[in-house]
Amino acid sequence: MAAKQDKKVILTGDRPTGRLHMGHYVGSLANRVKMQHDYRQFIIIADAQALTDNYDDVNKVRSNIVEVTIDYLSVGIDPKVSTVFVQSLVPELYELTAHFMNLVTVARLERNPTVKDEIKQKNFARDIPAGFLCYPVSQAADITIVRANVVPVGEDQVPMIEQTNEIIRRFHHLYGTELFPEVGALVPKVARLPGLDGGAKMSKSLNNSLYVTASEKEIKEGVHKMFTDPGHLKVSDPGKVEGNVVFAFLDAFDPEPAEVEELKAHYRRGGLGDGALKKRLTGILIDKFADARRIRSELENDLAYVHEVLREGTARTREVAADTLARVRSIMGISYEAFRP
Amino acid sequence: MAAKQDKKVILTGDRPTGRLHMGHYVGSLANRVKMQHDYRQFIIIADAQALTDNYDDVNKVRSNIVEVTIDYLSVGIDPKVSTVFVQSLVPELYELTAHFMNLVTVARLERNPTVKDEIKQKNFARDIPAGFLCYPVSQAADITIVRANVVPVGEDQVPMIEQTNEIIRRFHHLYGTELFPEVGALVPKVARLPGLDGGAKMSKSLNNSLYVTASEKEIKEGVHKMFTDPGHLKVSDPGKVEGNVVFAFLDAFDPEPAEVEELKAHYRRGGLGDGALKKRLTGILIDKFADARRIRSELENDLAYVHEVLREGTARTREVAADTLARVRSIMGISYEAFRP
Repeated sequence: MAAKQDKKVILTGDRPTGRLHMGHYVGSLANRVKMQHDYRQFIIIADAQALTDNYDDVNKVRSNIVEVTIDYLSVGIDPKVSTVFVQSLVPELYELTAHFMNLVTVARLERNPTVKDEIKQKNFARDIPAGFLCYPVSQAADITIVRANVVPVGEDQVPMIEQTNEIIRRFHHLYGTELFPEVGALVPKVARLPGLDGGAKMSKSLNNSLYVTASEKEIKEGVHKMFTDPGHLKVSDPGKVEGNVVFAFLDAFDPEPAEVEELKAHYRRGGLGDGALKKRLTGILIDKFADARRIRSELENDLAYVHEVLREGTARTREVAADTLARVRSIMGISYEAFRP
Repeated sequence: MAAKQDKKVILTGDRPTGRLHMGHYVGSLANRVKMQHDYRQFIIIADAQALTDNYDDVNKVRSNIVEVTIDYLSVGIDPKVSTVFVQSLVPELYELTAHFMNLVTVARLERNPTVKDEIKQKNFARDIPAGFLCYPVSQAADITIVRANVVPVGEDQVPMIEQTNEIIRRFHHLYGTELFPEVGALVPKVARLPGLDGGAKMSKSLNNSLYVTASEKEIKEGVHKMFTDPGHLKVSDPGKVEGNVVFAFLDAFDPEPAEVEELKAHYRRGGLGDGALKKRLTGILIDKFADARRIRSELENDLAYVHEVLREGTARTREVAADTLARVRSIMGISYEAFRP
């Protein structure tokens, strides 16, 4: 246990709005499976944050808490070393958010580039829910409540970490403390997996994704419809590798990268058909995610265990959270020991 | 206990930013002392709200929690029938606020006339803390967590109650419930007590107030410096009653209103000096607040009792709050019984 405490703390997680796909795997899940041994890893299932723009579809958020947890366990997240927790069940987060809300101006939140982009995408126009505008503050609370050192984020999420560090610095300056570590943004150097249709991003709503626990049939069908090179009509034609989704997947998943380079050269000069490539990829994906599929089907019949993972992870997080919040209140001078019930 | 439950619930309270003065007494405290028998009365000491614009002066807020409680007890708030509680020690409030934040738009908060006025007064300019802009949402949580039917407010605070009712209606509509009663604004029909200097409002920062537990000496000095009629130079001169602070106080506190009317007539036609009037008023105020002074000096030597009042009131409020929040989560569909720790 002592050694565990010495590890740096990492916070990572997802909004529970859908099952996790291979884009998530390449972008973050694979990393988490590795990092769980090097860091003290907290994985937040950010249901309260998901509600800021899904408050009218609570069912979706609720059901995906369990789905996402099953996905975590399926790909190799080990609940003995990683702490998976449900955001809305850690009430300390709400209070820390409230204290932080006084340390950020409205103008600063409105300038947040990530939030600005999302507001545009979501067509909120002037009707932005206050909770949505303020979610970077709640995110700062998520990060600081476990006193995280590192948060893995995509390039577009770096401003969120900067916002957190601003809040931390303001808190330290105002209350004369150094409670929280400066947070480092860990931007993974992995290529983003494109959608099956060649779109930049895999997304459930675009119907261009493959779940990490897709069935063999779904993998076959998904690979079959993958975008390749529309100019590559005959097998003998030279083909393009860039923008070819099959090669993007092979780059991500083929255990023999040297062979992939040879295949690329062959494809470019002509004589290599899409069918052969897709067959190879199908086999690789079916193998790669065999364990994940198996574990999911086992867990779907053992929900009590999945619930246990969430309950224990959330309880463990609450312990840390209660300790952080007690320190925050003490530092701010609002412990009120004399009349606290 | 059953009869108590049948009473309508009233929520009232103060930001703990200073001791309470006679303006507070006339405007609200006197009413609370009466209403505590007719309603189930909750009195919130809104320290978290006070922090939204005093986050850099926590000392002031902290020390005034106890001062304000002493003032309550001094003027006759009975902790056996009134529940006095400390806002920041009811964590359920932070969570309910977070759920409500998704039901209000930023534009709506920016249009709130009360907040707009306060932002002007406080010279925030563009640097409005997010917590300050959102405090009407937190206020809606204060009101609804005890399922209050009635909130006594000044005319200028009526928009805050309207904001609360909007949030309630939105919550009811979205989640198909009728959990919360519509909140009525109780605007008391009392004249506002002017400042000693004749200013419209008594305020500690303007140094024109008299505390409800002012000493005899402070009362004498306060009345002595009261603004009367600057044109009333000799006793024989006719004097003006309108804008004359001494008469405003006599109207508020003299137990013989008929005599006050006679004095006004006498003053208007000339022949009645300020000295005689001030002497009368001094005697009345010393009598009126004799119990309050005595009780304060007793309580200052028995802080353990004051703390006990706060601890018990806060514990009682938390019971109600936990029940309300459990219902809210159940209605929203986020009880998560299966994996809640």
